This record gives sequence, C-alpha cells and structure tokens, in this order.
Amino acid sequence: MLFIIVFFLNLLYSSYNLPFTTKEVIKLIIPGMTDLHVHGPQYAFRGLGMDLELLDWLNANTFPEESRFEDLAYAKKAYEIFVSDLRNSTTTRACIFATLHTEATLLLMDLLEKSGLHTYVGKVNMDRNGTPALQEKDSDTSYADTEKWILHSLQAYSNTKPILTPRFIPSCSDELMRKIKKLEKRYHLPVQSHLSENINEIAFVKELVPSSSCYGDAYRQFGLFGNEVPTIMAHCVYSNKEEIELMKRSGVYIAHCPESNINLASGIAPVRKYLEEDMHVGLGSDIAAGSSLNLLKSMAMAIQASKIYYRLVDQSKKPLAFSEVFYLATLGGGSFFGKAGTFLKGYAFDAVILDDSHIRSPRKMNLEERMERAMYLTDEIKIIHKYINGKFIF
Amino acid sequence: MLFIIVFFLNLLYSSYNLPFTTKEVIKLIIPGMTDLHVHGPQYAFRGLGMDLELLDWLNANTFPEESRFEDLAYAKKAYEIFVSDLRNSTTTRACIFATLHTEATLLLMDLLEKSGLHTYVGKVNMDRNGTPALQEKDSDTSYADTEKWILHSLQAYSNTKPILTPRFIPSCSDELMRKIKKLEKRYHLPVQSHLSENINEIAFVKELVPSSSCYGDAYRQFGLFGNEVPTIMAHCVYSNKEEIELMKRSGVYIAHCPESNINLASGIAPVRKYLEEDMHVGLGSDIAAGSSLNLLKSMAMAIQASKIYYRLVDQSKKPLAFSEVFYLATLGGGSFFGKAGTFLKGYAFDAVILDDSHIRSPRKMNLEERMERAMYLTDEIKIIHKYINGKFIF
Repeated sequence: MLFIIVFFLNLLYSSYNLPFTTKEVIKLIIPGMTDLHVHGPQYAFRGLGMDLELLDWLNANTFPEESRFEDLAYAKKAYEIFVSDLRNSTTTRACIFATLHTEATLLLMDLLEKSGLHTYVGKVNMDRNGTPALQEKDSDTSYADTEKWILHSLQAYSNTKPILTPRFIPSCSDELMRKIKKLEKRYHLPVQSHLSENINEIAFVKELVPSSSCYGDAYRQFGLFGNEVPTIMAHCVYSNKEEIELMKRSGVYIAHCPESNINLASGIAPVRKYLEEDMHVGLGSDIAAGSSLNLLKSMAMAIQASKIYYRLVDQSKKPLAFSEVFYLATLGGGSFFGKAGTFLKGYAFDAVILDDSHIRSPRKMNLEERMERAMYLTDEIKIIHKYINGKFIF
Repeated sequence: MLFIIVFFLNLLYSSYNLPFTTKEVIKLIIPGMTDLHVHGPQYAFRGLGMDLELLDWLNANTFPEESRFEDLAYAKKAYEIFVSDLRNSTTTRACIFATLHTEATLLLMDLLEKSGLHTYVGKVNMDRNGTPALQEKDSDTSYADTEKWILHSLQAYSNTKPILTPRFIPSCSDELMRKIKKLEKRYHLPVQSHLSENINEIAFVKELVPSSSCYGDAYRQFGLFGNEVPTIMAHCVYSNKEEIELMKRSGVYIAHCPESNINLASGIAPVRKYLEEDMHVGLGSDIAAGSSLNLLKSMAMAIQASKIYYRLVDQSKKPLAFSEVFYLATLGGGSFFGKAGTFLKGYAFDAVILDDSHIRSPRKMNLEERMERAMYLTDEIKIIHKYINGKFIF
C-alpha cells in the first residue's frame, strides 16, 4: 500500500497539478534513483563473459580486470567513463565497490565528488582466495591501507563517503574481518558486502567459517551485519529463514540485483517475501554481472524475475507491480542515504527529468502509463535534467 | 556446432579479413534478423499492462486495442509508426499478425511493401471467444473476407506475402478451421498461430477440441500443422513429448518469444531441448507481450531465460550461448523465408550495419566481444545501414 501511495504522490508532484495535453509538452519528473550495489571497475567489461557462474566468473573475468587498476593511467581512463555514464543515468545516489587499490579508489572518489553524485565508495578488502595479481599481502597491509584511505576520504570529500567493503567472506580471513570491525568502531562507517548469491559460494562460506549457522551469521560473528552498523548486503538469493530473521532484526539493507542473478545463473531472490517481512530492499545494477547502469532496466527486470519466481517457484508470491519496483528504485534504496528517494516533504530534492516524446504511439497515455512504458522502452527515453540534493547537475 | 561455424563465418565476413585497429573505424556487419512472431496492431501499447496472464491480458488489453483497427484513420496512424520502427530495427524479415480487419491489413501490407522489408502478413481469423467489438460474424464471413484479402495481396505485392492466421484454437470454431484448410489447399499459403503458451489456455483447448491428444494435435486434425504446409507456432512453452514429436515430424517452426513468456508469467520454453532435437527454432519479439522490436534484446533475453530454466527447472539443459542465440535470430528464423539469414554463399544478402563506437571502454575488444556486448547494450548501439535481398534500404 505504501508503495502505491508514494508512487502516486510522486506522480502528482511530477504533473505540477497541471492538466497535461500532449506528451510533447510535459516531461516526466521522478525522484532520483539509488543504485545500492555497483562495481565501478567492472564497467569496462559490461555485457561480456556471462557464460560462467559466480566463482568461476570472478576468477576468469573480474579479478583479471580489477588487477589492472593498480595502473593509475588505466584506472583514470576506466573510471572517467564509468563516472560520466553514471552521472548521465537516472541514478542520483550509489553505493560503489572500487578495487583493493587505495590510489585508484581515491581517484574514483575524486571523479565522483566532481560529478555531483552522492555516493558511498568502498576500497575493497581481500586477503585470501584472490589471484597473485589481485589480493592484499596480508590482513595488516589491508588494515593499514584501508585506514589511510579512510582518513584521506573523510577529509577530502563532502558527498563521497567511505564505506567498509570486505569483498565477501571467501575473500576475507578471520583476522581481516576483525580488523575491519576495529576500523568500523573507530570511524563509525557503514558496511557493504555480498550475501547468499550462489549455491557453491554458500557451501564455501560454511567451510571457511564452520561455526556460522548461516552465511549472514558469518558476518554477524565479526560484528559486521547491521544493528549499530548500517549494512547493505547484495543479492540474498538463497537466504533461509534464520538469515532472513537475522537481517530483519539487524535492519540490514538488501540490494536486489535481478539481472546479475539471472546472468550468472545464480537464481531469483524472493523479493516479495522480503517486502512482506517489511525488510529494507533497494535495487542494484551490479555492474558487470548486470550489464547496464540504467535502473529503469533493473526495475523491469525485477518485475520479470518476480514473474518467473511466481510461475516456477512459489505461486503464493505475487509478482511485483510497477509501483513496487518504482519504490525499490527510489525510496527503497534511497533511505540508506537518510531523507532521500521521494518528493515527500522534508526529503532532499533528487530529481530526474525524462523526455519520452520520442516514443510514438497513436494512443493518449496518462502519466502512470508513460512512466511504466519508460521502464521497458529505455532505448527511446532521454534523460534531460538531473538535480541532486537541490543542486542542478545538468 | 553448426551454430558456432555459422557464427564465425559471419564474423569473418564482417571483418572483411582486415586487421582492425580501433572500434571507431570498423563497424559490425551482421546478417539481417528475422522476427518470426510479431503483432503489428499491438505496437501501440508496447510496454504497458503487463500485470495479467494470457487470457485475461487478451480480453483487457489486446482485444480492445485491436478493435480500433476497424477505423482506417487510426490504423494508418498506428501502422505507420510500427512499420517505420520495424524498418529501422535489425529486422529484415518478419512474420506479422495484423487484425481481423481486411482493409486495415491491406493498409499495413501497403506500408510494408514500401518499406523494403520482406514479410508474411496475416489477416487474423477469429469467430469465437472474442468480444462484441472484435470477432468475425461467422465462419462464412471470415472465409469470404480472407479469400478477398488473399486475392488482393497475391496480386498487389512482391515482398509482402499473405500467411493464413487462425488466431489460436480458442478463437476459431471447427467450421472456421476447416474453411481455412480449404483456403490453404486452394492458395498453398503457409500458416502461423500460437501453441502451448499458457497453462489455462492449454486446458481451454482441450475442452474446445476434446478429441485432440495435445494442443498441436488440434491444429493437426484440421490439416494446419506442418507437413506440406509451412507452419510457425509461437511459444511452445509447455509442449509435451507427443507435441514435440508431432512438430518434429511435421517440420513446424517454433517462434521462441522469451520476453513475452516472462512478461505474461507464462513460463520458459525449453529451447535447449528443441535444439537438441534439431527442430526449427527462431526468435519472435511478440509485440506487445514483448515490449521491444529489437531482436538483439530478444537474443539476450533468450540466454537469460535459458539460464533460469537451467537453474530452476532442469540442470541437464545447458544455458544457450551467444553463438546459439545469434543463430536463432538470423538463420534459425530466416530459413523460413528460404535462403536467408546468413552470409553463406547462395543466400540473399540481408545485412545490418551496427555502429558501436558510442560504447566507451578502456579495453580493446575483438569482434566477437563487440557483438556479444551489442546484444546487452542496445541503448548504445546505432543501426546505420540495412540491406534486404541485396537492396539498400538506408
């Protein structure tokens, strides 16, 4: 119900209470969207190499690409493209994974700060199960580099904030997780990571942290799973009852990444269940397992994934409606940033203005139809203006 | 194996055997694509009203829209947009459903003939289970109108051919099916229809034709299911062993419409199985249950659907590879038109030239990577030239 109310309030606003006559004169004004999970360095190979499942895909595609970010010239070239495309998208706020490289991560943050976007950015921690070219020497090095990066970013930026980013349990030794907790306590930073994405990954985590009762519990044991620590966990495709209970109790945000979960043949996250349980859910593009930064596409894919889940897995879980995925893309994820993601009073003014006049149709459409259509026909939509926190971006 | 050979032959051709240096100078030249299943009149509401399953969706959205095509002025407005967008897409050949209206169907065919596209177009037959505004008076009227339309189109066009189009068993009485068979015998026309798309639809067909042993058998009983009659059946999501055997024996073409099957929560067609059985399979956009005419998108969605099928239904069915969906979109469907859909010797020269220079990446890509990426990043791809049967279209 909340979804529908928020949706119509937003649309009311976007019509400026004027009667509209033709689609040419009135644009669609919508709240800016929040990408809760995106890997900046992976943008270079978006749309490629989707024929593997998670762990093999990381080794074959992701780790080799991320290792190139040791080279600052390469990082600059890659991150300039990523930030420019993110700036030109419907996204106004984002939670971004960088790589383990401190210098390249600060370079990314410099570019983001200049872009006007509001972001959390994580220098990635990983001291095991990487490759010779992509792994930190040991947990001490990782700790020292991370603290240096935190100190620099805390004083250098105003809209670009550090977020602790243990890649995922398979990449982080127990010692490293304890050191990340130490940094969390000292600097009070939020945390982002991955959770229950893939069946083999989950089995691997159980091996690595045998005392954990579920994957989420492995993070909890190190004090990095919600409660006083604002936390985003990407995926949650296979979260069992205990893990759901734990996320609920600790207020963990779920970054639902439907295209990624399909491209890597991971599965489909039971988002309807998470909404029924009143959990925090937003959308993530999850570049490069997801191919596009466009959260309008993620919205459509979230609906499509929920329809297959309904058909093939559980017919008690009604497919997501347009108003619900609109909520996920805006207020659902935006609330991780505080008062953001809606045009309701008291919220930051994040807005995106869409021109759908290139879509030709013999029919007259009302505002809701135009917005629903925009989600499917992204090729024909232009993003013409953007405001973030009241500031005109373009 | 065939898929891979054809794919590389096509790419070899497209590189002109030149070493390429930058993505700016060499475009991607690919065989034109064939859309084996698309509803022209539904283009007006693409991307809308996806919250229903097949039979309800037809009654709520499709039949009311199609009934408007009695008004020739509306039909002109709508079909001009449809044909212009189809002409500008990667599609060079298509099998199109019109409506039951003879005049509007001929108007569509006039526009298609002028466009340079090679198409089969069907005036739809439907004499039961429609709405007061969208149903033919009786089978005699349907027969007479259809014959009039056939005679006109056979003499008026060279690249726009009539195809018999009983909407689907629920829409066509036994008498009508027998009369369509009579037309088939007299004019030797191919046939297109729908098959085993949705569970309730299949149950309904069994009620309507109690003597049929499967949905496909209901068409077969009227002599409209392959063998001497070239036949396309859209969907085949739930074809059982018997139906598969029947399709195989009769050489029926399957139009796989992955996005449509997901949007209407129908399910996922077992395309890997059909390929293992060496059946004829191509892709269909199935506007407006599918939202886009762009077959590059259908290719990506076919891979994605096959990954979910692999994960959630049957792990013995390996997901489709890029070379395989490239085959489906080109030669797979193109062969319904005879020698079309590939650059192999002896085939019609249907070609589309893609400009992917707007995709920015710090990496160098080879041709195969650029083509795979183009399938996911359609927003960033421009179609700059098109040839059909050797003729320059734009």
